[in-house]
Amino acid sequence: MSDPRFFSVVGPFTLSELAAKGEAELVANADGAVLVYDVAPLDQATERHISFLDNRKYMDAFSVSKARAALVLPELAHLAPDGMTVLLSKDPYRSYALIAQMFYPRVAPEPWVAPTACIDPSAKIAADVRIEPGVVIRANAEIGARCLIGANAVIGQGVSLGEDCIIGPNSSIAYAIIGKRVNIYPGVRIGQDGFGFAMGPKGYVKVPQLGRVVIGNDVEVGANSTIDRGAGPDTVIGDGTMIDNLVQIGHNVRMGRGCVMVSQSGISGSTHLGDYVVIAGQAGLTGHLKIGTGAKIGAQAGVMRDVEPGETVGGSPAVAMKDWLRHTAILQRMIKDKGRGDK
Amino acid sequence: MSDPRFFSVVGPFTLSELAAKGEAELVANADGAVLVYDVAPLDQATERHISFLDNRKYMDAFSVSKARAALVLPELAHLAPDGMTVLLSKDPYRSYALIAQMFYPRVAPEPWVAPTACIDPSAKIAADVRIEPGVVIRANAEIGARCLIGANAVIGQGVSLGEDCIIGPNSSIAYAIIGKRVNIYPGVRIGQDGFGFAMGPKGYVKVPQLGRVVIGNDVEVGANSTIDRGAGPDTVIGDGTMIDNLVQIGHNVRMGRGCVMVSQSGISGSTHLGDYVVIAGQAGLTGHLKIGTGAKIGAQAGVMRDVEPGETVGGSPAVAMKDWLRHTAILQRMIKDKGRGDK
Amino acid sequence: MSDPRFFSVVGPFTLSELAAKGEAELVANADGAVLVYDVAPLDQATERHISFLDNRKYMDAFSVSKARAALVLPELAHLAPDGMTVLLSKDPYRSYALIAQMFYPRVAPEPWVAPTACIDPSAKIAADVRIEPGVVIRANAEIGARCLIGANAVIGQGVSLGEDCIIGPNSSIAYAIIGKRVNIYPGVRIGQDGFGFAMGPKGYVKVPQLGRVVIGNDVEVGANSTIDRGAGPDTVIGDGTMIDNLVQIGHNVRMGRGCVMVSQSGISGSTHLGDYVVIAGQAGLTGHLKIGTGAKIGAQAGVMRDVEPGETVGGSPAVAMKDWLRHTAILQRMIKDKGRGDK
Repeated sequence: MSDPRFFSVVGPFTLSELAAKGEAELVANADGAVLVYDVAPLDQATERHISFLDNRKYMDAFSVSKARAALVLPELAHLAPDGMTVLLSKDPYRSYALIAQMFYPRVAPEPWVAPTACIDPSAKIAADVRIEPGVVIRANAEIGARCLIGANAVIGQGVSLGEDCIIGPNSSIAYAIIGKRVNIYPGVRIGQDGFGFAMGPKGYVKVPQLGRVVIGNDVEVGANSTIDRGAGPDTVIGDGTMIDNLVQIGHNVRMGRGCVMVSQSGISGSTHLGDYVVIAGQAGLTGHLKIGTGAKIGAQAGVMRDVEPGETVGGSPAVAMKDWLRHTAILQRMIKDKGRGDK
Repeated sequence: MSDPRFFSVVGPFTLSELAAKGEAELVANADGAVLVYDVAPLDQATERHISFLDNRKYMDAFSVSKARAALVLPELAHLAPDGMTVLLSKDPYRSYALIAQMFYPRVAPEPWVAPTACIDPSAKIAADVRIEPGVVIRANAEIGARCLIGANAVIGQGVSLGEDCIIGPNSSIAYAIIGKRVNIYPGVRIGQDGFGFAMGPKGYVKVPQLGRVVIGNDVEVGANSTIDRGAGPDTVIGDGTMIDNLVQIGHNVRMGRGCVMVSQSGISGSTHLGDYVVIAGQAGLTGHLKIGTGAKIGAQAGVMRDVEPGETVGGSPAVAMKDWLRHTAILQRMIKDKGRGDK
Repeated sequence: MSDPRFFSVVGPFTLSELAAKGEAELVANADGAVLVYDVAPLDQATERHISFLDNRKYMDAFSVSKARAALVLPELAHLAPDGMTVLLSKDPYRSYALIAQMFYPRVAPEPWVAPTACIDPSAKIAADVRIEPGVVIRANAEIGARCLIGANAVIGQGVSLGEDCIIGPNSSIAYAIIGKRVNIYPGVRIGQDGFGFAMGPKGYVKVPQLGRVVIGNDVEVGANSTIDRGAGPDTVIGDGTMIDNLVQIGHNVRMGRGCVMVSQSGISGSTHLGDYVVIAGQAGLTGHLKIGTGAKIGAQAGVMRDVEPGETVGGSPAVAMKDWLRHTAILQRMIKDKGRGDK
């Protein structure tokens, strides 16, 4: 269903193969030998496709979809139209992800070093890397096996990349130690000076920023996001952390494993996060805070105090989400009362 | 009035010519043959210039301006100082835009392909394009006539650009089909993976992003903004839509014609906008919403529900603007009452 | 204490030298001849290092630090552990900055013009500049002595840079006059069109943007920030102003000296700031406002009215900080009362 201009699909696969890969269960009377050729959204799918339902907002689209098969929660399976074979899954989105990866497997970059790349002779470049045109790699940098360095990216002196990293076009990385399978999107800025200066009688006095950025394995950093290096301590991003576009991470920030930061959120200097913290879009955290493992920060929240493990907060200044919902409800009631008074 | 280091002015033009082009009306006793040599702001203009008044905050500057002529609403014309000829316009800002375009016409780029550009032999490059140094154009891309591809921009495999597009320096475009007369500013990122992953027992499972970015005609995308490609459906930007700097548009977003997004605003995945929706600065929309034609979203609003056509909303979470203004007024009153109580 | 992969430290220095440079006072019985080899954070410092305490959140770390010496406020000196020599300072952070600059002095860039840089013959390049690979410098640009132009940066026609500027990799600068010792971080966009258009019957009419960006001396602009050029007037950034990452500055904005803008904040068109205005993270200012000298704008504030000199505002819409704190307290009390009512 994807545009062949941009994507190459493999397959076909049988429903049995897909169910196994997708950790889903074929309904009892289904023919596991049926071939499926691609994934597709519910409203675009045909008898060649498998689709999925993971959000109840799309139940109507599901019930009229022409998809040959679909991944669905057991309790919604009865909504399937005639002609659709359902694959039952406790997490249809995850099952879909696994199946879509089967049709669109990750392809290792074709090894190449562009003649217009400018690589310092002291840099250590492992086997099977792809270095595109205009790339600059400075002294003593280390590039792991099978890395892809996108066009016009700039890798600073001493930077180390583990195996299988993807560095997007036009990004810049400096003062950083980066793990394996890290995906840096286009336009990302990593390792520049943190925002540190002291007031003086003749203007600001710049504080030398002497730390690094240390990024674990399996991290993604979205387009045009910025991660400053530490002032003395390092800035640290834990394994498996997912960072969206236009996110700001200040100096000395420390994030655990599996954290998620949605677009346009930001963390000020020296704030520490546990594991699996989720920060929704446009939320901001001030500096020097401690955010516990599993905490959730609501969209546009402004966090100015520590957050307990597992706590969910919202609002600006952020309070317990329960209190923020009350606050919102109280104001709505006051507005309605006022509205009546106006008549 | 502009700095000749950067700009070349044409002209002069007579007041009659300017009035005609600017869809404005010369006052009765004015001499339409008077020559004007340039546009200028009210406080910098001299007897060689035409200026304009479009914001009542600047009435004082208008009443002492030395401009030879000025575009103004009929009801404010009486504020004009002696020596200024007024051109009456129902929309002085629009009239000014038309006249400024007359003095500073858009110039087609001088055709050139820089020797350091790296263009795949399979790319189709139309006539009269300008491709600047360091540009990378990948396999099967199509560049329309008279396009300008700015220095160090990266155009991905299969990307299609219509005629007369301007692609800013250091931008990156992938998985995109782009119309005519589109202006992509420096540092824009288009077509990277949307932020899609499912939770798994061993970390996040990435969802392959199999859609495209489809951009209509006459669209502008501001500096360092990011537009992710669709997950399955496309991300779609309608004709004539204007996007400011540092804006985020998530996967599967669909925007109609003539929408406006002001700086640092963002739209989460799968939200659909009608035509002429205006989103003010730093506002955010969560995912899977429907925003009707002509809706207006206030600055810093946090929209978590559908918005009706023509509705104006504000606040976070966003409510009808009328309610948000009441909310604000109520709080101000409570604060004042509390203030009195403190004494 | 810094990673030698990335940093080179000079020294050692005696405690007397450090006290003099740091404008601090050695305690009475201290041995000023003791040698110190580096700076380090409190928790990483050893008998070779000097550290500092500037935030009471870190008093515990201070009281068990193994640092040979530390900068501290006189009133906290009694918390120092045995073996630590204290240097008393009224502003330990500033003293630390001065001392860290002593160990890590700024090094002038090694002069070089990369052969892959593309420099128009009409550009004026002063002595001792460093121009890295992939840089593009257009006609009539002027680059001051000892400037460093980072890899793949693009300097537009007529742009002027004073002496000792640093231009980060992958940044783009156009229509700009820039002072001395200005530090532009990677990915910054300066001088593109402001967001100006008028409504017309057939879509938006673009307003030619005929001003410049004028930046004073000793300014920093953080990674991926964007500064639009003026529409007619210039966009002006005063001497010594510090701008963090992902900040937006609209056309015609005028900032005085020594202003500070924290990450992800933004200023809409034609707003004027006095000197030493501080704008905290994610705050936004609408257009055509006047913000007085010394004003402070709280994090995430939404400023829609003028702000008096010295005034501090918070909230969205922003009010006097005192009122915003009351507002927050009132809501908290209402939530608690409601909570009790629920039981």
